[in-house]
Amino acid sequence: MLKCEIISVGTELLLGQIANTDAKFISEMLTSLGIDVYFQTNVGDNKSRLLECLKIASNRSDIIILTGGLGPTMDDLTKETVAEFFGLKLVVDIDTKIKIESYFKKSMREMTQNNYKQALFPEGSKILPNDNGTAPGCIFEKNGKKVVILPGPPSELIPMFNNYVYPFLKSLSNDIIVSRVIKIFGIGESKVETMVSDMLLSKNPTVAPLIGNGFVTLRITAKSDDVQKAKKMIDDIEVSLRKIFGEYIFGVDDDTMESIVLNLLKDKGSTLSTAESCTGGLLSEKITSVPGASEVFKFGAITYSNESKENILGVSGEIIRRHGAVSEETAREMAMNVKNISKTDYGLSITGIAGPSGGTIAKPVGLVYIGLAYKDEIYVKKLISNGNRDKVRLNSAMHALDMLRRHLTGLKIDY
Amino acid sequence: MLKCEIISVGTELLLGQIANTDAKFISEMLTSLGIDVYFQTNVGDNKSRLLECLKIASNRSDIIILTGGLGPTMDDLTKETVAEFFGLKLVVDIDTKIKIESYFKKSMREMTQNNYKQALFPEGSKILPNDNGTAPGCIFEKNGKKVVILPGPPSELIPMFNNYVYPFLKSLSNDIIVSRVIKIFGIGESKVETMVSDMLLSKNPTVAPLIGNGFVTLRITAKSDDVQKAKKMIDDIEVSLRKIFGEYIFGVDDDTMESIVLNLLKDKGSTLSTAESCTGGLLSEKITSVPGASEVFKFGAITYSNESKENILGVSGEIIRRHGAVSEETAREMAMNVKNISKTDYGLSITGIAGPSGGTIAKPVGLVYIGLAYKDEIYVKKLISNGNRDKVRLNSAMHALDMLRRHLTGLKIDY
Repeated sequence: MLKCEIISVGTELLLGQIANTDAKFISEMLTSLGIDVYFQTNVGDNKSRLLECLKIASNRSDIIILTGGLGPTMDDLTKETVAEFFGLKLVVDIDTKIKIESYFKKSMREMTQNNYKQALFPEGSKILPNDNGTAPGCIFEKNGKKVVILPGPPSELIPMFNNYVYPFLKSLSNDIIVSRVIKIFGIGESKVETMVSDMLLSKNPTVAPLIGNGFVTLRITAKSDDVQKAKKMIDDIEVSLRKIFGEYIFGVDDDTMESIVLNLLKDKGSTLSTAESCTGGLLSEKITSVPGASEVFKFGAITYSNESKENILGVSGEIIRRHGAVSEETAREMAMNVKNISKTDYGLSITGIAGPSGGTIAKPVGLVYIGLAYKDEIYVKKLISNGNRDKVRLNSAMHALDMLRRHLTGLKIDY
Repeated sequence: MLKCEIISVGTELLLGQIANTDAKFISEMLTSLGIDVYFQTNVGDNKSRLLECLKIASNRSDIIILTGGLGPTMDDLTKETVAEFFGLKLVVDIDTKIKIESYFKKSMREMTQNNYKQALFPEGSKILPNDNGTAPGCIFEKNGKKVVILPGPPSELIPMFNNYVYPFLKSLSNDIIVSRVIKIFGIGESKVETMVSDMLLSKNPTVAPLIGNGFVTLRITAKSDDVQKAKKMIDDIEVSLRKIFGEYIFGVDDDTMESIVLNLLKDKGSTLSTAESCTGGLLSEKITSVPGASEVFKFGAITYSNESKENILGVSGEIIRRHGAVSEETAREMAMNVKNISKTDYGLSITGIAGPSGGTIAKPVGLVYIGLAYKDEIYVKKLISNGNRDKVRLNSAMHALDMLRRHLTGLKIDY
């Protein structure tokens, strides 16, 4: 079994300015490939200490993955130091040089001399394109060690790993590892775990809960010498999980609640508009983060004040005065009216109290009403969320999307 | 200066199930105490590999802080392994033993033999009470090294560190460390560094660039034997940085672009509405993420379709047909109209092409127009952003907020 070690370079880690989520991500992926990670080390932007780490790592690991320190500044010294340790020269990659030049030309920004550093790599490296930034990564082999160098920012590292490093590492092992993530919404994490406690003990395939962002995920991982066999093992587990969780499973793998809802709307040829109060645009932001959203999403109203609810969205002032802006009645009108003025098939609304202030005994922080209008149908769901302002807002947006998913797939909306 | 090293023990870290937020927290606290952290290492629940880490750490550090592996199970072996490495016996702490027994009595749970493990400590240890769990921590000194052992769960580790470890470490150092973060928008990271390259070499105070999310940050850190002296050192550097970057500095420490803009609006007693196309609600979501936003933010329109721009926001159909939805003219009308229909002082608009599709040679992906309307004034800024959909959207929202910040503070809007 291959042994891998992760070295993350960056003084910001040692100063405690950020937690190392890169090492977490890479370790999770390596585990799914059947590669053992025995050590993760964080070291500063310091040549001698990085050399020390490389010496230790090359004595005990087959694969060394380094993250961070690929930027254009003086502090960024990962490639130089790794090249020195392995006795390799740094050479210019012409393609990268041209790309960096055109990047600066396009954004009409001045290019400084230190930007050229990003086009230098240890000789013999395979270059890993950076589709989300200027610093490419690289892979080389020397003295029987495989060395992978990746940029630090997660928005650059994650796609680079998925597109270029994962296939490379996968090719090193005879074991076929297949995994699938099942995403569940509407049941709490500890309840999910209790419901599948026997499965969590299984050795192959394994079933493991992951920390999700607003929902619960279970990762199924199967190991075999044959892809089809591994897939079959996973399919069988998925069938069992679907028997247990049924309609609470909203997607698998890269699915997000918003991508699922958008695809359902596209399939049905239906259009959507939204009216938000306490979420302040989070719902529409999630929906429009999916490429191609404009096919189905037409309009969103952030009616943050009572006046805008009344004057722009046409919510009855009488209703707001009698029931309050945070009420079933207001949520109902918001959903119906936004649907009507934007001439869409669906209207989805959220009104609530995100906190930290604004709560009362009758209407506490976390109280949210979600409205869904479709033709003459209208549904309102009352929600009480725990947690801070961010959590209340996220939970509200997720529940609104789930309500729409349920309507689009003919499921019961209230549960 | 004292050198410290953090070793976190737990296979869950190596499997990528969690990120190591303990190391982040401890490092941040140590930095504030003027103690250098040169290495953070994560290792599994494995005796021989932990011994290896202890050997490396004791050769290069004065203080070793270990986290995790204090539980009652077979896997938990931190105290045993550390005691073995330093040649110390494990001895029972009677107080801890009594506490554990009464804990189980109180919660009416059965106490198993392995729970007694939690009352064993390396001889000569000072016990650190655990006010939020059953596993206490400890501190001992041996061979000139100070060793601190803490439980892994952050809810137990953080209060234990603050109450017992922080005072202990503070007593080791006479130095006072003060730091301040300066936030810059509108100049690229590498250019910022070129502009302060001499300051980056300074030893005390130090100036270091940090990774920002859509902006650039510089952290100034001063060390002294007196708080006032340290603050004065920082003030002097801030004055120099303000001379260099002037209006590009939008905030310090915990300020965000949105909190700064909201406070400026509050101070002026002005109100705001927004009209977004490609950002799909990201701008309003950022603004409303600040508690108390409702005082100044009244309404946001996400006019994602041409029809909604025309019918709801009242943008002239003639303008959209002649100049396109992504144009200076449309941005202008969106800003002016949203201000007028919501009766706010300011109207802020964004229209552009976030990609990945929808770009042409004349109007490429990344092209964005931002409009700002105030009374009869109207400003439009043209922007070309690099990167993927998320980056284009984030950069657009940040530029829109910065444009408003500049107007509110009487600065030039176009730069």
